[in-house]
Amino acid sequence: MNKSNLEKIILGVDPGTNVMGYGVLSVVGNKAQLIAMGVIELKKYESHYLRLGRIFERMTSIIDSYKPDEMAIEAPFYHKNVQSMLKLGRAQGVAITAAIMRDIPITEYEPRKIKVAITGNGSASKEQVAGMLQRMLKISKEDMDVQFDATDALGAAYCHFIQMGKPEVEHKFSSWKDFVQKNTDKIHK
Amino acid sequence: MNKSNLEKIILGVDPGTNVMGYGVLSVVGNKAQLIAMGVIELKKYESHYLRLGRIFERMTSIIDSYKPDEMAIEAPFYHKNVQSMLKLGRAQGVAITAAIMRDIPITEYEPRKIKVAITGNGSASKEQVAGMLQRMLKISKEDMDVQFDATDALGAAYCHFIQMGKPEVEHKFSSWKDFVQKNTDKIHK
Repeated sequence: MNKSNLEKIILGVDPGTNVMGYGVLSVVGNKAQLIAMGVIELKKYESHYLRLGRIFERMTSIIDSYKPDEMAIEAPFYHKNVQSMLKLGRAQGVAITAAIMRDIPITEYEPRKIKVAITGNGSASKEQVAGMLQRMLKISKEDMDVQFDATDALGAAYCHFIQMGKPEVEHKFSSWKDFVQKNTDKIHK
Repeated sequence: MNKSNLEKIILGVDPGTNVMGYGVLSVVGNKAQLIAMGVIELKKYESHYLRLGRIFERMTSIIDSYKPDEMAIEAPFYHKNVQSMLKLGRAQGVAITAAIMRDIPITEYEPRKIKVAITGNGSASKEQVAGMLQRMLKISKEDMDVQFDATDALGAAYCHFIQMGKPEVEHKFSSWKDFVQKNTDKIHK
């Protein structure tokens, strides 16, 4: 059975404590197509706890709706503010747990890696990432979610799509730079 | 209806990514009694993700077994290592979500606050905290869990028991020092 001929659904997530973005891609062979994108608004919940509960509820519902085979998560590994890092960790932990409870494999990507994979530039703006995604996935203006939390999440899903078929890429290459040099044809510039 | 005459169950949790401790107290009036204490071993799961899933599963099962009315969580708000803070945040987020999904109110206590509440000394050792809990709750040697993750969790539950009946204590007092000065009779020394 050739896996690349089967449809795979990738769920991309950009967890945050104010807004959580998500994007869903359908992948058949080497073609990816947008299925859905959106945000989970959390600001209306005053309590940090209610926000975590809401993330879990919505993530579970999104997973049950789209039945993703894989989840890609945008995960910054560093933040100057330790308090923000703790809060971010909590939001990430909840999103990850929702996927784990449904046996969905998770891959984490640093924001910079996602930007390089999509635009070829690790310092690309959120607008540039959104623009590239819109062109590459041929998304109509109406379907394009304006919130960057959603496009960032879609970016994580697209980055994972590019990485697919290259299992354990994290171990096979000593660094992202190394990976880029060895795979210039696979990097969108 | 005098709430203090009703039994209240307090679940104390000390979340970690290697071991998660828990302790359950039954409170009737101003008397607290040990119901259970133990640890969730996570080291056997190599993947960080599986550990988070396991925390959620076990926490949900503990909550369903003991039906706590409140959860107290030992939550360090600072760590020198940002990576450790992110990991700790993830574990905390999962434990918190398990409680939120069952509508259980959560209160967080810094390790130092728990130590002050139980021993009167914010720099008390884990041994001292465990020893005080054993005496105050009249726990037999056999019932005393030797792992400090369990006694720390029980400490969080006991600290919450002491705080009960003083709603919004965090807001009523400008600082813990202020609180201690105004409540010397309530602090165990």
